[in-house]
Amino acid sequence: MANPLLDDRLVQLLLEDVLDAEALTALPHFEDHGKETFGLYLDACRRLGREVLFPTLRPMDLEPPVFEKGRVRLHPSFREAFGHVRELGAISATRPAEVGGQQLPLTVATLAHAYLMAGNLGVVGLAWLTTGAAHLVEAFGSDDVKARFLGKMYEGQWTGTMALTEPQAGSSLADITSSATPREDGTYRIRGAKIFISGADHDVAENVVNLVLARIDGAPAGTKGISLFAVPRLREEDGALVSNDVQVTGVIHKIGWKALPSLALGFGDRNDCHGWLVGAPHQGLRMMFQMMNEARIGVGVNAAATASAGYHEARLYALERTQGRALEARGAGEPVPLVAHPDVRRMLLRQKAIVDGSLALAATTAHHADLAEHGPEDARAHHQLLLDLLTPVTKTFPAEFGFEANALAVQVLGGYGYTSEYLPELFLRDQKLNTIHEGTTGIQSLDLLGRKAMARGGAALQALGAEIQQAIAAADAAGLDDALRAPLSKAMVRLGKTSMALGQKGLAGDTLGMLGHSVDYLTMTSLVVVAWQHLRLATAAAMRPSRGDFEEGLLRSARYWMATELPRVEHLAQLCETNEPSYLEMEPDWF
Amino acid sequence: MANPLLDDRLVQLLLEDVLDAEALTALPHFEDHGKETFGLYLDACRRLGREVLFPTLRPMDLEPPVFEKGRVRLHPSFREAFGHVRELGAISATRPAEVGGQQLPLTVATLAHAYLMAGNLGVVGLAWLTTGAAHLVEAFGSDDVKARFLGKMYEGQWTGTMALTEPQAGSSLADITSSATPREDGTYRIRGAKIFISGADHDVAENVVNLVLARIDGAPAGTKGISLFAVPRLREEDGALVSNDVQVTGVIHKIGWKALPSLALGFGDRNDCHGWLVGAPHQGLRMMFQMMNEARIGVGVNAAATASAGYHEARLYALERTQGRALEARGAGEPVPLVAHPDVRRMLLRQKAIVDGSLALAATTAHHADLAEHGPEDARAHHQLLLDLLTPVTKTFPAEFGFEANALAVQVLGGYGYTSEYLPELFLRDQKLNTIHEGTTGIQSLDLLGRKAMARGGAALQALGAEIQQAIAAADAAGLDDALRAPLSKAMVRLGKTSMALGQKGLAGDTLGMLGHSVDYLTMTSLVVVAWQHLRLATAAAMRPSRGDFEEGLLRSARYWMATELPRVEHLAQLCETNEPSYLEMEPDWF
Repeated sequence: MANPLLDDRLVQLLLEDVLDAEALTALPHFEDHGKETFGLYLDACRRLGREVLFPTLRPMDLEPPVFEKGRVRLHPSFREAFGHVRELGAISATRPAEVGGQQLPLTVATLAHAYLMAGNLGVVGLAWLTTGAAHLVEAFGSDDVKARFLGKMYEGQWTGTMALTEPQAGSSLADITSSATPREDGTYRIRGAKIFISGADHDVAENVVNLVLARIDGAPAGTKGISLFAVPRLREEDGALVSNDVQVTGVIHKIGWKALPSLALGFGDRNDCHGWLVGAPHQGLRMMFQMMNEARIGVGVNAAATASAGYHEARLYALERTQGRALEARGAGEPVPLVAHPDVRRMLLRQKAIVDGSLALAATTAHHADLAEHGPEDARAHHQLLLDLLTPVTKTFPAEFGFEANALAVQVLGGYGYTSEYLPELFLRDQKLNTIHEGTTGIQSLDLLGRKAMARGGAALQALGAEIQQAIAAADAAGLDDALRAPLSKAMVRLGKTSMALGQKGLAGDTLGMLGHSVDYLTMTSLVVVAWQHLRLATAAAMRPSRGDFEEGLLRSARYWMATELPRVEHLAQLCETNEPSYLEMEPDWF
Repeated sequence: MANPLLDDRLVQLLLEDVLDAEALTALPHFEDHGKETFGLYLDACRRLGREVLFPTLRPMDLEPPVFEKGRVRLHPSFREAFGHVRELGAISATRPAEVGGQQLPLTVATLAHAYLMAGNLGVVGLAWLTTGAAHLVEAFGSDDVKARFLGKMYEGQWTGTMALTEPQAGSSLADITSSATPREDGTYRIRGAKIFISGADHDVAENVVNLVLARIDGAPAGTKGISLFAVPRLREEDGALVSNDVQVTGVIHKIGWKALPSLALGFGDRNDCHGWLVGAPHQGLRMMFQMMNEARIGVGVNAAATASAGYHEARLYALERTQGRALEARGAGEPVPLVAHPDVRRMLLRQKAIVDGSLALAATTAHHADLAEHGPEDARAHHQLLLDLLTPVTKTFPAEFGFEANALAVQVLGGYGYTSEYLPELFLRDQKLNTIHEGTTGIQSLDLLGRKAMARGGAALQALGAEIQQAIAAADAAGLDDALRAPLSKAMVRLGKTSMALGQKGLAGDTLGMLGHSVDYLTMTSLVVVAWQHLRLATAAAMRPSRGDFEEGLLRSARYWMATELPRVEHLAQLCETNEPSYLEMEPDWF
């Protein structure tokens, strides 16, 4: 049987039963849409992911981009696959009609695009990078800058990159040193080096526009002196495209996402690199971060999709492959399918619970993003609070737990899983990037605990608590067992208590006391947030007029989460509250 | 700074302070040894691992074996590297002098060989496969079979394999179908197909001897009809080596251990494959399992060594690379080394605790193996009980937790960790095999809970409890904090209680009730057993006349384990005792 990449029934349940995406069409911004247009886009993405992208996944993994004579050449199938993504309008799917977009809710696009991501992350990665870069131009660019770049980027004729990281600075953007010197024509002369720039050169579109962080001469030190520039690989002169002095200086050999090259770039080696300022000087980091939140949700969707594709490989294998005898039969009888072994079901159910929880979380966060931007005025602040709080969780949970799920998929296949004849190992490698790029797990944890959870006196956690109370009431009304409701209620109380205790340390100036176990805090929050998702899925399943296989599976996943994963909250809370000192006290030489 | 692969101070502490390996030389079997001979072998392995094997690791990963015209060619450096391993006498290091061995205690060899494994698993893998196969011949072969194969194998002139798995049967050895037909000359005509046979062909030694499981014509079905044969690739005829009709039918593209080929083999396609029966007919599985226990401890050492090598890569990177500002400085001041960030110390300390615990566990298990075989007669049964109990834990804990440690090493390096320019990703790939080969984690868990823990009325667990009580008393005498002792004492009581509850279900015939959460039981046991190791390491550290960096590190690792990892025991115990039904009740169609 072919890998479906995602379970269509889950996608439908999320959009119809859990989130009621159709209700978004009552909002002015989405009024031209309806259930039918959502369905058309979903179907198109589903087919593209399954029929076009997925078959290219292993070939592109085996034959990564080639760097020759200063240029990068992608896999021969990349151009056609990317062409389909362009034609679908995926790059600007959620952007307004006035800039050529389809003005789709992010809720719908998130689940639709998950099929593309599960099909081939590398190919659609080039599209999302372009969306992110173009969105910066759309939001902050002058009319001239927009006229130069925006249309071609949203159309996919030119692609985009986010060029933040420098070799010496890594995650520490305060330390970037790329420079920008004003030129007489209003542009800037750019000089510097960037690293890990995905898609910065290729042979599948005419040009690449790099969104580059650099310091204008004389700018303040640190994060407050960083400006944002559009720096194309080729610039237009007299109607022709000429070199803009952007050089590929190296190819980074990534262990996954191999279809898409990650490159080191040099700007202005010949002193002839022009950059167009985007937005006000020195505001680059603020602008970049605004877009990075979208990118972070996107990473969460990538991660959920990769975990899902791995799960379905393992599931199909376990259903089809016979091996060993039933445990109860003590070695007698005929060989049984792998799924008959309790331990295989353990590994599958854990994967399923992580996948379902991740997809539900990503869709929920996207839903809050839609409502925060386009919802009724008086509700926007509420949704923005939740969006802010959920973003680091949505970035991290599917990546960290998804990696564990992908490792279990390898394990289900046993010796075969350890070979590149099967796909789980590829998904495992792809997945690992998601805990690193667009802000590592450690960085997300500081964002969650140091900023999001504490902002406005803990208002976001209160909003979360209210949502969870609502979900519990709905579960009660649907007749769900208390064993599915009570643990979540208790865990949310614990999360609130821990947050308050840590907040008080922060207020007292004890930064380390507050943030020392920030990753434990993030894990704890994730377990609660995902339990909330499982309760909503189970409630929706229970409300269906009749329970089939799918609904039974959701009810078991939810029970699994409450009984097996959620109970870790208590211990994590203790580690946070006591600021357990083992690693905090470690001196460098003691390692 | 160069990666040391293992911390020499830890190895010394284990051999001298914790296990008192020198005391073994009071036993007749080890009387020719002394601290000096142990030291010489350790030093030789240390140098070979660091200076010869480790530099070949990445090159062999990048240039895997080539399969051409039916033969397999290894990396050009393999022959020389393997030659050093041969010269060292590593293949027969622990075997008796009468068969050409060095008669070293397994305790010493385990830690010495860990340097070789950390250096290049693939190269030394060929040696250990040969040891395992030759040991079967030594233990069960007739004089004729021994004369044919044993000397050449222990010397490394011929190498060995273990040919168990068949394509259709996987882990289920009851289902193997390879056949053996008696020939007039006393040998057997072998026919069949095997898969995942590591090292079954290469160009670095003259011949390969496969130890093959097959059924003699007319043998009973199932596991009771399986016999063991030595089936060389080339057989001797009239003083020359001629083809024995063993064909390589395919190369499996493994995702790690790339230096060593994993092959599919066909036996007897031309009806001319001779096999020499080893041991009595139909006793093959019993014999194979006897040796497999050694192989399983070996996998644990591999896993510990791989986790260790990854940890040291991450540690050195975190000490050297500066990035970001101290959390307390809130963005001000100069960039600090990565190790200054609490979350990086969290990731390093978790790795260190897993590595130290894994190496201590492997050495402890080896020590019980030495004493079970060569110790005072009246103590052997006690050590055999512990050896049996600890074997599945030693196979599994370093592999499962070591994989998590190796993933953390990738994460510490951030974007660089995601590239093949750095080694952590290689260790991560290498590590994954260890949860699969020589019996998956699921199989180990059934062995532990279904056999080892329950044997002789729980005598092994009682022996473990007594060891732990002794360790707690010693820790008390050394003045260690109750926070290091009390949690272990409590967890051991919990393990005993859970074991008894599960044993009663088993006695009542409720197999599924007993074994449904066997992996949770294995994890729980591992957490306790490793806590015991940490307590012994901390006690030894505290007993030292003065505490330096190393001793402080051990004390913190122990505290970390007791406070952060061990508390999971209570929840795992509940899952086991209640036989939490979520995945047990899952129907195949509900996934």
